[in-house]
Amino acid sequence: MLYWDQMNAYFDNGTTTPVAKEVLDAMLPYFRENFGHPIFIYSLGQEAAEAIERSQKIISRTINAKPEEITFTSNGTESIDLAIRGAAYANRRKGNHIITTNVENPSVLRVCDKLESDGFKVDYIAVDKQGLVDLDQLKKTINDKTILVSVANVNDEIGTVQPVDEVARIVREQGRKIFFHVNAIAGYMRVPVDVERLGVDMLSLSAHKIHGPKGVGALYLRKGTRIEPLNYGYVSMSGLKPGTENVAGIVGFAKAAELASDRFDRNVKKMLELRERLMKGIEERMSYYLLHGPRGEKRSPANVNYSFKGVEGEAILLRLDLEGVSVATGSACSTRKLEPSHVLTAIGIKPEVAHSATRFTISWQNTPEEVDYALDVLPGVIENLRKISPIKAEDM
Amino acid sequence: MLYWDQMNAYFDNGTTTPVAKEVLDAMLPYFRENFGHPIFIYSLGQEAAEAIERSQKIISRTINAKPEEITFTSNGTESIDLAIRGAAYANRRKGNHIITTNVENPSVLRVCDKLESDGFKVDYIAVDKQGLVDLDQLKKTINDKTILVSVANVNDEIGTVQPVDEVARIVREQGRKIFFHVNAIAGYMRVPVDVERLGVDMLSLSAHKIHGPKGVGALYLRKGTRIEPLNYGYVSMSGLKPGTENVAGIVGFAKAAELASDRFDRNVKKMLELRERLMKGIEERMSYYLLHGPRGEKRSPANVNYSFKGVEGEAILLRLDLEGVSVATGSACSTRKLEPSHVLTAIGIKPEVAHSATRFTISWQNTPEEVDYALDVLPGVIENLRKISPIKAEDM
Repeated sequence: MLYWDQMNAYFDNGTTTPVAKEVLDAMLPYFRENFGHPIFIYSLGQEAAEAIERSQKIISRTINAKPEEITFTSNGTESIDLAIRGAAYANRRKGNHIITTNVENPSVLRVCDKLESDGFKVDYIAVDKQGLVDLDQLKKTINDKTILVSVANVNDEIGTVQPVDEVARIVREQGRKIFFHVNAIAGYMRVPVDVERLGVDMLSLSAHKIHGPKGVGALYLRKGTRIEPLNYGYVSMSGLKPGTENVAGIVGFAKAAELASDRFDRNVKKMLELRERLMKGIEERMSYYLLHGPRGEKRSPANVNYSFKGVEGEAILLRLDLEGVSVATGSACSTRKLEPSHVLTAIGIKPEVAHSATRFTISWQNTPEEVDYALDVLPGVIENLRKISPIKAEDM
Repeated sequence: MLYWDQMNAYFDNGTTTPVAKEVLDAMLPYFRENFGHPIFIYSLGQEAAEAIERSQKIISRTINAKPEEITFTSNGTESIDLAIRGAAYANRRKGNHIITTNVENPSVLRVCDKLESDGFKVDYIAVDKQGLVDLDQLKKTINDKTILVSVANVNDEIGTVQPVDEVARIVREQGRKIFFHVNAIAGYMRVPVDVERLGVDMLSLSAHKIHGPKGVGALYLRKGTRIEPLNYGYVSMSGLKPGTENVAGIVGFAKAAELASDRFDRNVKKMLELRERLMKGIEERMSYYLLHGPRGEKRSPANVNYSFKGVEGEAILLRLDLEGVSVATGSACSTRKLEPSHVLTAIGIKPEVAHSATRFTISWQNTPEEVDYALDVLPGVIENLRKISPIKAEDM
């Protein structure tokens, strides 16, 4: 893609990841050889159905669930929509109140907007300056109309690891059934996820954030949890996702999950080392920076997010891109908008500082050399941009 | 997949097709190299966005549409659901009456069931013994509450080519806007599809029926046609299909469409020759058979469907599978049910005859040798099954 000899350092793994070689190898036989339709009872069809069942087994094991509790979807956004609206519609006779936080992924927020237009009431719990959800406010906000709580285990923008076990405990203590959905898309394979320990009812996952292919997500749905489908049509394997399954994609997702799960401890240790190396390097070499989100254990091992005052995140992103370094700015999922990130606003960051937020998201496939390359390039990029900026960093 | 040296003859291309080699080759760079997220403004993201735009252009050209009229979905079923329910919900203030036929694909029928439970009224137009829709009944059934008509251009089970241009004319003649959706999944690349000539508003397509990958469909939506989304979440490129796009799958779909479109006339000629060779062979070598659907030009070049009286379709399918010949029985999309096909019931076939229906669906990748092999194997399979059948073919 680049025409000269230059290092590449991809640090936008929170947006998407390249498919791992082993994952692609696992997928390949399902395009041209085992290409059967899982609905069919002859051998080619059986092979496809078995591949999906094996994939359910593999994914379920990584979150301590049962195979039949896994439904494959076409992306993580579809999983979130299905979980939240599916549970809301199925329980609308029990209540119309939904609780989430004000730092959720845009997908959660748009699904909640839709529910508000359908007559549901949604409360957005505030977070502290580190992005941690206010558990006292959560307790006070739950009422006898509350049917659903949705929280991400890891904030995809500033890396805050939420106390979802505490949230789960509060939700369970209410003495009546309130559904609890965890958006685990940013957290999966970065922090441990155990649906049994958590007591979560629904959990959303996505393949392309863990070196699996785009076009596949999964929804964990605790056995006995009934939600309303959002889509209709002929059913091959799951009534919650009608139509022909993306067999190769599902197989690839399972392979990616298996690889990452087998090496989970090693991967986390590696990401932590890279994260600390990057943060230390930035703080030693740069000035007028501001870290977004917590330090230490309450931060995802994969996330580094700083504002470099006086410059625009978009300009940083494009300049770094020219140097072969990929990062995100603001929320990865709202990059064609010009509003400051709702997450940064929620943790009290001024718009002019939020605009310079630069997010590095690390994967276990990154290397110390890539971190060092980014650290070599970054100060010059910021310095040059500050020279042409009308705003002075020291005045912000 | 088979352990001995045996010919394989895959004649279930109406259910799914193997991915063409050129299609897989076109997809491969989008897994590990051009793996960017289309929402992102840096180079990797731009490449992904451009790949999707190029794919829209390619697909649109094959049906004489404009690139921006193509929305990619996760499968053909999703396209159908989005078209029919999306248009119905968007127009519910104008009326609640929907018209389709009683030989539509199970996806269409289940979407219509859902609409009936939502308060819509659905009328199912009858077909004649060849499966051709009754245009007089259609005219009489349209009323001032009618908002949508949905018809497949080719019946996926018995291959009837519907007079969709006649249907379109009738729909347009009403003097007020009635939406017209064509399910072109079975017909795409088997019969010509021209959205301008037809004046259709919406048209559903699927990749894996034309040697593209599973996990991708498309919906053509005429410019200015507003439908309600069925899914919500963050939007990367299309508000009708939120979430991260299956970039590699979309590229594969476009490649498959381009290949099939470039060779359309040659492919159709080839399928027609294979179809006639298979039908002639069956009628010469077999007894007590019954052809389902029309002969000649009103039949899809890809479809051959016969009942072999006195035997079960499922038994035929499994015995042929052992010989390396893949076929479908009843409706390809309802093969784990035991009810006789609703299409065969609609054309007046008795249940005991419908149960022995055996569908061969041909692709341009099939060969005369494969047809001859199927013809070599078929009489023995039927003869053996008839020997153990409690019902005599001559009594049916």
